[in-house]
Amino acid sequence: MVTLPTPAEARAVRRTLRGTVGLVPTMGALHRGHISLIARAAEQCDVVAVSIFVNPLQFGDPEDIAHYPRTLEADLAVCAEAGAHVVFAPTVSEMYPAWPDPPATAVSVRGLTENWEGASRPGHFDGVATVVAKLLIQCTPDFAMFGEKDYQQLKVVNQMANDLDLPVTIIGLPTVREKDGLAMSSRNAYLTVAERMAAPMLYRVLKECAGKIGRGQLLPRVLDEGGAALERAGFMLDYLEARNAETLATIDRVDKGSVRLLAAARLGRTRLIDNVAV
Amino acid sequence: MVTLPTPAEARAVRRTLRGTVGLVPTMGALHRGHISLIARAAEQCDVVAVSIFVNPLQFGDPEDIAHYPRTLEADLAVCAEAGAHVVFAPTVSEMYPAWPDPPATAVSVRGLTENWEGASRPGHFDGVATVVAKLLIQCTPDFAMFGEKDYQQLKVVNQMANDLDLPVTIIGLPTVREKDGLAMSSRNAYLTVAERMAAPMLYRVLKECAGKIGRGQLLPRVLDEGGAALERAGFMLDYLEARNAETLATIDRVDKGSVRLLAAARLGRTRLIDNVAV
Repeated sequence: MVTLPTPAEARAVRRTLRGTVGLVPTMGALHRGHISLIARAAEQCDVVAVSIFVNPLQFGDPEDIAHYPRTLEADLAVCAEAGAHVVFAPTVSEMYPAWPDPPATAVSVRGLTENWEGASRPGHFDGVATVVAKLLIQCTPDFAMFGEKDYQQLKVVNQMANDLDLPVTIIGLPTVREKDGLAMSSRNAYLTVAERMAAPMLYRVLKECAGKIGRGQLLPRVLDEGGAALERAGFMLDYLEARNAETLATIDRVDKGSVRLLAAARLGRTRLIDNVAV
Repeated sequence: MVTLPTPAEARAVRRTLRGTVGLVPTMGALHRGHISLIARAAEQCDVVAVSIFVNPLQFGDPEDIAHYPRTLEADLAVCAEAGAHVVFAPTVSEMYPAWPDPPATAVSVRGLTENWEGASRPGHFDGVATVVAKLLIQCTPDFAMFGEKDYQQLKVVNQMANDLDLPVTIIGLPTVREKDGLAMSSRNAYLTVAERMAAPMLYRVLKECAGKIGRGQLLPRVLDEGGAALERAGFMLDYLEARNAETLATIDRVDKGSVRLLAAARLGRTRLIDNVAV
C-alpha cells in the first residue's frame, strides 16, 4: 500500500494508474462502516484509494474539530487490511494553503442542503461539497463510495458531482451497525456508558416508525409518537422526518421504496444521526 | 475541425486525445481578440479546443442575454481559420439540465469578486466561476486562454482553478485593440456611430493615467482627473481604480509593474470595461 501525503503526489500517481479507480473519502478514525466501503470498492474497482483528511472547512464548532478522533497509524493498518492500494492523507495546509483563512473558492449546493444537517450546522455542507469536489478532482476516481448513514451528505455529493460533470459514479452503501443496531460512527466514541446503552433507541424508533408507516398509519402521528419515544429515552430531538428518498422533498403520500426517514438527536453532548428506508 | 454539441461527446473525444490540449472558452461572436487566444493556443498546444456557449448563468439582465450577439456559423469559420481542431458548442439544457432553474451547485470565489464587475453585476462571477469550472472539468485542458480585457475575470478564474486543484494552467493574454485603441469586445457592436467615435477615450484616459502615475503624480489626483476626462467625453463612470495587479488589493504605494488600472464606464446603453498596466 502506498501512502501519498500531497495532492501533487496523488495526481502524479493517478496518472500512472490503469483500470478503474475507486475512492473512499474519509476523515479517518476508521470503523467497520469504512471497512465495508473499502471492501466494496475492492470488489468493484481495479485500484482502491482511501483519503484520510479531517476537513476543517466542514466543522462549525472549533471544539468539535479539536476533539475529533485522529488515529492515523491504526487507520493505515485498517486500510491495508481492508484491501486499499493507495492512501491519500494530505495536511490542512496542502489542501487549503491560506489556512486558517478558508479558501476563496467555495462549492455550494442549494436546495438539498437547506434543512436538517444544513440547518443545524451552518456552512457544513459547503465545506463537504468543497472538499469532496477537490478530492474528486485530485484523484479522479471512476467510483466514489459513501455511507448511507450520512444520507443527506450522500445526496448533496451526488448532486454536486452531477452538476459539475465530474466523471465519477457516486455509490451509496448501507449503514453498518453495531449488534444492538447503533449506526457505526466515529462520534460514538464520545458517548458515556449510560448514553451508549440508550443510543440504539434511535435506530429502533426509526424502524418502528418505518413499520407503522408501511402498515398504513398516518405519517404525522407516527412521527409525533417516534419523537416522543426518543425524548422519553433521554434524547433531545433535533428532527425526525419522512422525505422523498431521492430528492429529499416533502411527500404527499407514501409510496413503498420512495420514502426515507431521517433523524438527528442529541444524547448529552453527542449528536447522533441515522436514517432508514420505509 | 470537429464540432461537439454535448458534454458527453466532449469528454469522449478528450479521452482519445494525446499531447497537450489548449481550451479557449468563449461566448461566441468571435473577434480578433478571440483569434489571438486561439492562435496562441495553437502555438503552445498539440490540440486546440474552442468552447462556444452563451452562459445564461452569468447574465443578470434577461434583456442583455436576449440581445447578446449569436453568430455560430461565422464563429465556426473563424475557429477553423484560426487553427482550432475542436469546437465544443453545447446547448443550455445540456449544460444546465434544469434550466430555466439554475443548477443546484454553484462555484463562488470570495474576495476577488466583491468589487467592480462583481458589485455592478450581482451573481455574475458565480455564473462565470461555475461555467468555467464545468468546462475545465468536461474538457480537462492542460492550458486555458483568457483575455486580459476581462482582467478581474481572469484573476477569478485563476483563483478558482487553483483552489479546486484543476490540472490546468490559466494563461492571460494581452487585450487586442482596434486601430484607435478601443478594446475588442462583442459588446462594441451595440455602440451607435457617435458612441463608437467617443469609445476609444476610455483606453486613452487609462494610458494617460498610467503615464502620470509612472511619472510620480499622486494617485488620487490622477484618478480624479481621469474620471473627469471620461465624463467630459460623455461617459457615465462606473469605476476607475488602481489596484495590485496580482491580488487586486488596494495599494499603499506604486511599484512599477505591480499596479493595474481598471475602469468601467457606460456610453449610452453600452457598458465598456478596460484596463492597463502601470
